[in-house]
Amino acid sequence: MRIGVLGAGQLGRMLALAGYPLAKSFVFYDMSGNPSAGIGNVISDPEGTQLKEFLSQVDRVTYEFEHLPVDVAEQLAREKTVHPSPRALQVCQNREAEKTLFGELGIPTPQWKIADSAESLKAAAESLGCPVVAKSNTEGYDGKGQAVLKTPEDAEAAWASIGHPRLMVEKFVDFSREVSMIAVRAEDGQLAFYPMAENIHHEGILRYSIAPAPRLSPRIQEEAERYIKSLLNELEYVGVLTLELFETADGLVANEMAPRVHNSGHWTIEGAMTSQFENHIRAISGHPLGSTEPRGLSCMINIIGEHGDVERLLELPYAHMHLYGKGERAGRKLGHVNVLADSYDELVWRASNCVQFLPGSPEFSSSLNENDTQ
Amino acid sequence: MRIGVLGAGQLGRMLALAGYPLAKSFVFYDMSGNPSAGIGNVISDPEGTQLKEFLSQVDRVTYEFEHLPVDVAEQLAREKTVHPSPRALQVCQNREAEKTLFGELGIPTPQWKIADSAESLKAAAESLGCPVVAKSNTEGYDGKGQAVLKTPEDAEAAWASIGHPRLMVEKFVDFSREVSMIAVRAEDGQLAFYPMAENIHHEGILRYSIAPAPRLSPRIQEEAERYIKSLLNELEYVGVLTLELFETADGLVANEMAPRVHNSGHWTIEGAMTSQFENHIRAISGHPLGSTEPRGLSCMINIIGEHGDVERLLELPYAHMHLYGKGERAGRKLGHVNVLADSYDELVWRASNCVQFLPGSPEFSSSLNENDTQ
Repeated sequence: MRIGVLGAGQLGRMLALAGYPLAKSFVFYDMSGNPSAGIGNVISDPEGTQLKEFLSQVDRVTYEFEHLPVDVAEQLAREKTVHPSPRALQVCQNREAEKTLFGELGIPTPQWKIADSAESLKAAAESLGCPVVAKSNTEGYDGKGQAVLKTPEDAEAAWASIGHPRLMVEKFVDFSREVSMIAVRAEDGQLAFYPMAENIHHEGILRYSIAPAPRLSPRIQEEAERYIKSLLNELEYVGVLTLELFETADGLVANEMAPRVHNSGHWTIEGAMTSQFENHIRAISGHPLGSTEPRGLSCMINIIGEHGDVERLLELPYAHMHLYGKGERAGRKLGHVNVLADSYDELVWRASNCVQFLPGSPEFSSSLNENDTQ
Repeated sequence: MRIGVLGAGQLGRMLALAGYPLAKSFVFYDMSGNPSAGIGNVISDPEGTQLKEFLSQVDRVTYEFEHLPVDVAEQLAREKTVHPSPRALQVCQNREAEKTLFGELGIPTPQWKIADSAESLKAAAESLGCPVVAKSNTEGYDGKGQAVLKTPEDAEAAWASIGHPRLMVEKFVDFSREVSMIAVRAEDGQLAFYPMAENIHHEGILRYSIAPAPRLSPRIQEEAERYIKSLLNELEYVGVLTLELFETADGLVANEMAPRVHNSGHWTIEGAMTSQFENHIRAISGHPLGSTEPRGLSCMINIIGEHGDVERLLELPYAHMHLYGKGERAGRKLGHVNVLADSYDELVWRASNCVQFLPGSPEFSSSLNENDTQ
């Protein structure tokens, strides 16, 4: 089976690496003019004239990023099976639609309001209570197109800096940590859930994921599974879906979802019986899903901006290197290291050991630093 | 780094799948006219006119099969680093040279003699004591170019059937099982050894490998490590080397070696901290080696001739599917399934469960069937 992937970055690359052993072949359709997959057949088409050619070379279509025009996805879906569906894409591209759906399904979110002017932004900030974060309702990602309002008086400057006609305004959530739930749904409706990961961000970029999340209560895991299950079924979703959440004293609060494999699931390559990449390929190809059981404890460390001392990292017997074959540039995701261990104490020690060879990485810290481990 | 692989079959494919995450790219040079790697850049050149072009596209050269003219390897080695060295290739292509080296290094072999006529074959059979096996001294592999002599009188027919001017004649070894030792040597001489596998053949083709081999005594593992270490160092070898052995009441007896990753090491993909493929790529690229520690118990099941019921196999949570993207043909290696378990009892049950979905597979049997399992 020939899989067509919209986008040609590291997620597509890792989908292909997981898909070849299932006898799939891969064609990537790149719209950026700067494809980095480095594997399979890449059609680089910044002009957008070769979509027909791409379609003629593939049996099924999926994507590695959600910032794709919905009408393009719909056009593709008229000719080939596209997983996940354009509707999932549409919901994920629109914060208002996403939060409305969360609400309909009983998934808690931060309190929110929509603003369509500097005045209504100020009113939203007053009504929600500052601090609030304002985000462009569409198009923004990775912390772009956002502003924090410490007082309602910040509204005018924030409105100007974001420069978008419609904003999602959210009240800050008092959370103990950020977690993510990754799940997969097969064509026949079969579901599988990975254990949740704890995610540590630094300057808006994911740096570390620990999975299974330390001190993960079965109740919290089940709560997240219930939420993502309702999304998967409502959207008749096929493939991997990621739900980013805040863990608070009152339970989970949903931040946002991503209709694809996710950076916080890279630990599954060595850390689970079946990786998120293989399970996405299985799902979109109509196969049964693979086991999501963890294999020991994992910490995923992102390699950002510069590669660091790769040779020293390769010497560490518990570290698994995953490089994306990309050139160095500040803030760019160049690869990740998956660290395995049998106890959280050992995991922290090993992850810290890796971090010393990755200049520019923030000191390794997680909820494990706050108290005694276990 | 651009890795050039001589040969373009499933071993090359799996080398590439392991090498991309280390930021390597791959060019395959196929001389068969029937490449199956299905990944990387394949130069198919049955006429042998594009070797220069191949060399211009790569930084280092390795191979996935040893039946390559040594003068071609030497020619390549004058222009690019070739690992393992042409000398290793030469020894592995010549049974007399191989057994002579084994003897020099104190590695036990079956008693053997060289025959260069029907008469000397008869004399060898008489002197060694039948049964003996006669094999073409060069070129033969996978049971081709071989004949068994039950009495010296079979010599004339055997000589005619093999049709080769120089034969290796070996006395039968009374062995309890077939095992293999896979080891890797880095450019700086660093060594790493996998736990030995027990190998079960059927009609001359490997069907199952169990690793670590059941009831593997540390003494036997150390004996095999000592043997392969002497070969690796003597040949100044860089990369993965495989030594096939018989386990007998008196210890190990070497059968033959292969200067490459090996079917009996496919279990390492999920079953070891670092796969044989990744370790070969690390070695030939000048990197430090990865850990060869096993992750639980593994059974590798070859998929031969027909794919069987892939969907049912994909349903099994302990089975990892590795398909080579090849068409079905009697006797052809189409893929393998790696089964994981925590006890040998469970491993046998799980492997047997897989085998029912692979028509044409011999019933699962190993040394574990002979006695009670642990």
